Amino acid sequence: MLSFECDYNHGACKEILDRLAAENENAYCGYGEDEICNRAKEKIRAACGCPEADVYFAVGGTQTNQLVIDTALANYEGVIAATTGHVSAHEAGAIEFTGHKVLQLPGHEGKIDAGELDAWIKNFWEEDTTEHMVFPGMVYISYPTEYGTVYTREEMEAISKVCHAHGIPLYLDGARLGYGLMSEACDLTLQDIARLCDIFYIGGTKVGALFGEAIVYTGRKAPAHFVAQTKQHGALLAKGWLLGLQFDTLFTDELYFSISGHAIRQAKVLKKALKEKGYSFFIDSPTNQIFVILENERLEQLKKEVNCSVWEKYDDAHTVVRFATSWATTDEELEQLISLL
Amino acid sequence: MLSFECDYNHGACKEILDRLAAENENAYCGYGEDEICNRAKEKIRAACGCPEADVYFAVGGTQTNQLVIDTALANYEGVIAATTGHVSAHEAGAIEFTGHKVLQLPGHEGKIDAGELDAWIKNFWEEDTTEHMVFPGMVYISYPTEYGTVYTREEMEAISKVCHAHGIPLYLDGARLGYGLMSEACDLTLQDIARLCDIFYIGGTKVGALFGEAIVYTGRKAPAHFVAQTKQHGALLAKGWLLGLQFDTLFTDELYFSISGHAIRQAKVLKKALKEKGYSFFIDSPTNQIFVILENERLEQLKKEVNCSVWEKYDDAHTVVRFATSWATTDEELEQLISLL
Amino acid sequence: MLSFECDYNHGACKEILDRLAAENENAYCGYGEDEICNRAKEKIRAACGCPEADVYFAVGGTQTNQLVIDTALANYEGVIAATTGHVSAHEAGAIEFTGHKVLQLPGHEGKIDAGELDAWIKNFWEEDTTEHMVFPGMVYISYPTEYGTVYTREEMEAISKVCHAHGIPLYLDGARLGYGLMSEACDLTLQDIARLCDIFYIGGTKVGALFGEAIVYTGRKAPAHFVAQTKQHGALLAKGWLLGLQFDTLFTDELYFSISGHAIRQAKVLKKALKEKGYSFFIDSPTNQIFVILENERLEQLKKEVNCSVWEKYDDAHTVVRFATSWATTDEELEQLISLL
Amino acid sequence: MLSFECDYNHGACKEILDRLAAENENAYCGYGEDEICNRAKEKIRAACGCPEADVYFAVGGTQTNQLVIDTALANYEGVIAATTGHVSAHEAGAIEFTGHKVLQLPGHEGKIDAGELDAWIKNFWEEDTTEHMVFPGMVYISYPTEYGTVYTREEMEAISKVCHAHGIPLYLDGARLGYGLMSEACDLTLQDIARLCDIFYIGGTKVGALFGEAIVYTGRKAPAHFVAQTKQHGALLAKGWLLGLQFDTLFTDELYFSISGHAIRQAKVLKKALKEKGYSFFIDSPTNQIFVILENERLEQLKKEVNCSVWEKYDDAHTVVRFATSWATTDEELEQLISLL
Repeated sequence: MLSFECDYNHGACKEILDRLAAENENAYCGYGEDEICNRAKEKIRAACGCPEADVYFAVGGTQTNQLVIDTALANYEGVIAATTGHVSAHEAGAIEFTGHKVLQLPGHEGKIDAGELDAWIKNFWEEDTTEHMVFPGMVYISYPTEYGTVYTREEMEAISKVCHAHGIPLYLDGARLGYGLMSEACDLTLQDIARLCDIFYIGGTKVGALFGEAIVYTGRKAPAHFVAQTKQHGALLAKGWLLGLQFDTLFTDELYFSISGHAIRQAKVLKKALKEKGYSFFIDSPTNQIFVILENERLEQLKKEVNCSVWEKYDDAHTVVRFATSWATTDEELEQLISLL
Repeated sequence: MLSFECDYNHGACKEILDRLAAENENAYCGYGEDEICNRAKEKIRAACGCPEADVYFAVGGTQTNQLVIDTALANYEGVIAATTGHVSAHEAGAIEFTGHKVLQLPGHEGKIDAGELDAWIKNFWEEDTTEHMVFPGMVYISYPTEYGTVYTREEMEAISKVCHAHGIPLYLDGARLGYGLMSEACDLTLQDIARLCDIFYIGGTKVGALFGEAIVYTGRKAPAHFVAQTKQHGALLAKGWLLGLQFDTLFTDELYFSISGHAIRQAKVLKKALKEKGYSFFIDSPTNQIFVILENERLEQLKKEVNCSVWEKYDDAHTVVRFATSWATTDEELEQLISLL
Repeated sequence: MLSFECDYNHGACKEILDRLAAENENAYCGYGEDEICNRAKEKIRAACGCPEADVYFAVGGTQTNQLVIDTALANYEGVIAATTGHVSAHEAGAIEFTGHKVLQLPGHEGKIDAGELDAWIKNFWEEDTTEHMVFPGMVYISYPTEYGTVYTREEMEAISKVCHAHGIPLYLDGARLGYGLMSEACDLTLQDIARLCDIFYIGGTKVGALFGEAIVYTGRKAPAHFVAQTKQHGALLAKGWLLGLQFDTLFTDELYFSISGHAIRQAKVLKKALKEKGYSFFIDSPTNQIFVILENERLEQLKKEVNCSVWEKYDDAHTVVRFATSWATTDEELEQLISLL
Repeated sequence: MLSFECDYNHGACKEILDRLAAENENAYCGYGEDEICNRAKEKIRAACGCPEADVYFAVGGTQTNQLVIDTALANYEGVIAATTGHVSAHEAGAIEFTGHKVLQLPGHEGKIDAGELDAWIKNFWEEDTTEHMVFPGMVYISYPTEYGTVYTREEMEAISKVCHAHGIPLYLDGARLGYGLMSEACDLTLQDIARLCDIFYIGGTKVGALFGEAIVYTGRKAPAHFVAQTKQHGALLAKGWLLGLQFDTLFTDELYFSISGHAIRQAKVLKKALKEKGYSFFIDSPTNQIFVILENERLEQLKKEVNCSVWEKYDDAHTVVRFATSWATTDEELEQLISLL
């Protein structure tokens, strides 16, 4: 059975597994206060060009979003996000669980528009009844988005400018950040992300790690007693050094970027093949997620040999399906998939 | 200065004030366990045609919505409401404060559509990823809506049918229920409301009481230990008998309906006068809230002599303004307003 | 049936009822932004000797505690209180409902001890694992306490000093503040309370009002967007001017103090009579709550003619019972009670 | 530097690392719905003697406690625990964060007493004001306790009986369950635990795994939509099969028990040596945590060569220190420690 249903179906890249084995007899203190974590943080600061950044680690993406958003917002604030944003749609209400509303803006192939954002915030402040509403306290974007698209530098600059004009921090969900940065459509660097956003996270779970996300505070310090708040959220890993170890490895010799580049190359091969075979694309995604419109019968057949994600109904006879490549996609698997399609 | 900005700008109807004075030397036990509350509940059950209904009282509308919704939903459930619904837009995030998402449907002049509701719920259950989403656990509607409109019997029957087909309780916010029921556009009775909804509240704050809302559970029992949960929400009034006293009065000799009818008659007079004077209406509301499109300059002048609600910007030169009548609107005030317009 | 079970079993003092009737035809804007509220706040500031204080109103005591504590604490903080404090024991978990722990200190006849408080806080900061614990973010005391006792000036000064040495605000629950201040055991003034505490509330529900508590911020400003946070808690009264009206009345001509004094005088008469009749006291309370140890059989008889509060089991044959006087206790009722005892 | 400060300072046992490497090229579906998880659950059911048990996995201990307790309790319920219980003292308010109070009972060397528990619950139900209090909805115990002690079978039977007599589920925190079960003081089997408790978790983080805890529902089914609730808590691991893999390994060939037994044997050697050298014990712990009273000067010296846990101040000249052995403690490390002491 071929597996193209997501980018978190394999363990970890070889370098991480080797490192795990190598460190297994050493003892490390708990809760991320060890030297490996410190080293990993230092490397991430350097890669981001932010020597002053606060860096923390968490285990998973929803956990990270919940933790970052809840600890950044005042009680009376919510987070602005696209209706298709992960925090709006696919986190089982994790943001509301912590008492905060997700204030929804239209998504345009997964992206919010700086002009619409600005208009929304301005309109909020013009209301007579702001004290009866939820205050905008953060802007959430994902890069790449849930539809595999990426913001251009111009779009990012514009969103960042709107946020800062209104004094609202910009938070970027980088669950697949590597795949975004290595896309040909990307005209941004990690340093640009760090400069334009106040908070973002570098996804490990989907990019070579067993698990783990690195939270980077560039435009503001991390919230007070962040470790206690992490614990309170049930999100503090006892063996925190496992997170440090993985990010230390990923940010050594630019491994994070090279394995991300691999996934993008595989996606390009797949996309080209799909195009040649006459498939229709639902969205023209330049990253590792490819959205194809399949006839329902074709899909049923395919499902016997390939795991893929059923995204949404297209019409009565067709379905939108997602194929995802990853750091782990081999040439062999890819060839098998292409020959099946 | 004339006051037409809302329907909660006056104290209470005379009968309630007299009753307060009459009872003032009597002692009543606390927290709503007194005989006046019991009598009021009995009268409400009779008026609703539901001898088995559980009836409770709360102080205000947002408090009631928060309490009813939070205590009815499971942890993993949210409440479906129109984007313009009070719980979506104007309760400062009170629903999210208790951990629950408001799942938004489009509002059509304040109303949700049974077909769209059904499609939404069906679509939810067809998702592969329901466990990553917020489950629909309740449907919230307001009657009349925030735009003064009322659902027809046919529309209500359809919504109720959809809810029950999916096993989801229907909750009706009746902050202005009396004004809805006495509208000429209304083809429903209080008994119909009680039959079609599982939970609803009869608004007192805007309809003749100093404060107070009566929560009626018809289609299901009240949640376990509802008094404890009310206390936990900070919503349990020490002198609960004040709530009973007000509803006992309102539901004696159909006072609730007669004072509501007064507001509707006053609104009709106002609407007729506005029409004759050539004003444009933003929405054709058949209840006590009238939405008019005013030139901005005209509005500025008017504001010197009348308090009214600035609803929203219409275009660069015009504003939507709300005038509300109430049980307390006198003929004299109405004449003065009309002569000013 | 005589009613001595609590101090919130009657409506409001005559002056408030008269004022309600007098204002009933006037219109006031909503949510406490009216002139009566402003006037009441001004009078409270004057009475407290704090011209700069932020003053807000809420409907009830648990609601006030929940609102004040939740909005003052950071996410990672809890509130220190006596195990017998109202927030610890009798608010159905209203504090925890908002995500905060009540950190318990031993109660000594309802009071906490400054030395024990200091030791607790010092010990907290000496822990290696503070990030795994709940930080002390506020100290809660009640005055008078749930056992009717009052802190001496010396005790209050000491507690206030400990709080401020540790940078922790002191919050005083004054549900029965008038009865405390008018007690012969009290060597403090309202101005002293305002000087020693950072936040406190002046109880109306138990002291002459239909309902209502006045929150006073003296040592710090009210939390940002306090009205929005009040709304979010479901605690914003639509007709907020009803709260202003009651406190404006209570703080005119020192009515709050004179009616409180009445309750204390009645309690003194009752206490003297009980003593003469040989009853044993559970606690020597100098305020309006009197705790007596009754034989169980005697209690059963008494209950047929008097409502009183069963406080706790004393031993197999005896029960602790509370009798409460209030601003509303008449001489006649008192005589009847005494003759029954 | 020797590391005896805790039992979570090493990676994973060899078998788990090998298995990770072996599975690394296989693809597994996300969120714990894979075949390895199913196999691990089956083995746990068998080991517990509960073929019908619901089994779920989570990443860490505080996360597990928060998830299990929040999803089991009704809104108006709290969890009863010893004041020294992990949920009471060392989880940064994670339980209160979800809206629930921890109702504290005295701890006796970390244990609660069945008689005191019964009296507490009975007393609760005898109160007149239960609706103003937090209802007991669960009993939490840890095995072994935070002080390394274990309940005897008789004690466990008694607690279980009290819980079930009152209809309250018994939940056991087994963060170190293996170390408890392999202690010579233990007269219980895993099957006994499963029979006496309604819910418990088998700790992996401290017993041979990189991370992970297995939650077992024996006396009741898991809460509805447990996966969605886990996601909502931010606790759903994307690569859930990593948890399955670890528990599948630990419950193959009784590995969980054999590595736990190793730690207990090492602790016994250490304890014997300490005794011979004349050290005083703070508590006579029969498991892998050893609490010793050290002179402060001795501690300062020791700290240069050994990491240990400073537990609490004993008196001005002495400190209570914890040494912990684990599945990873080598004979060599132990000898070095003993020669240093």
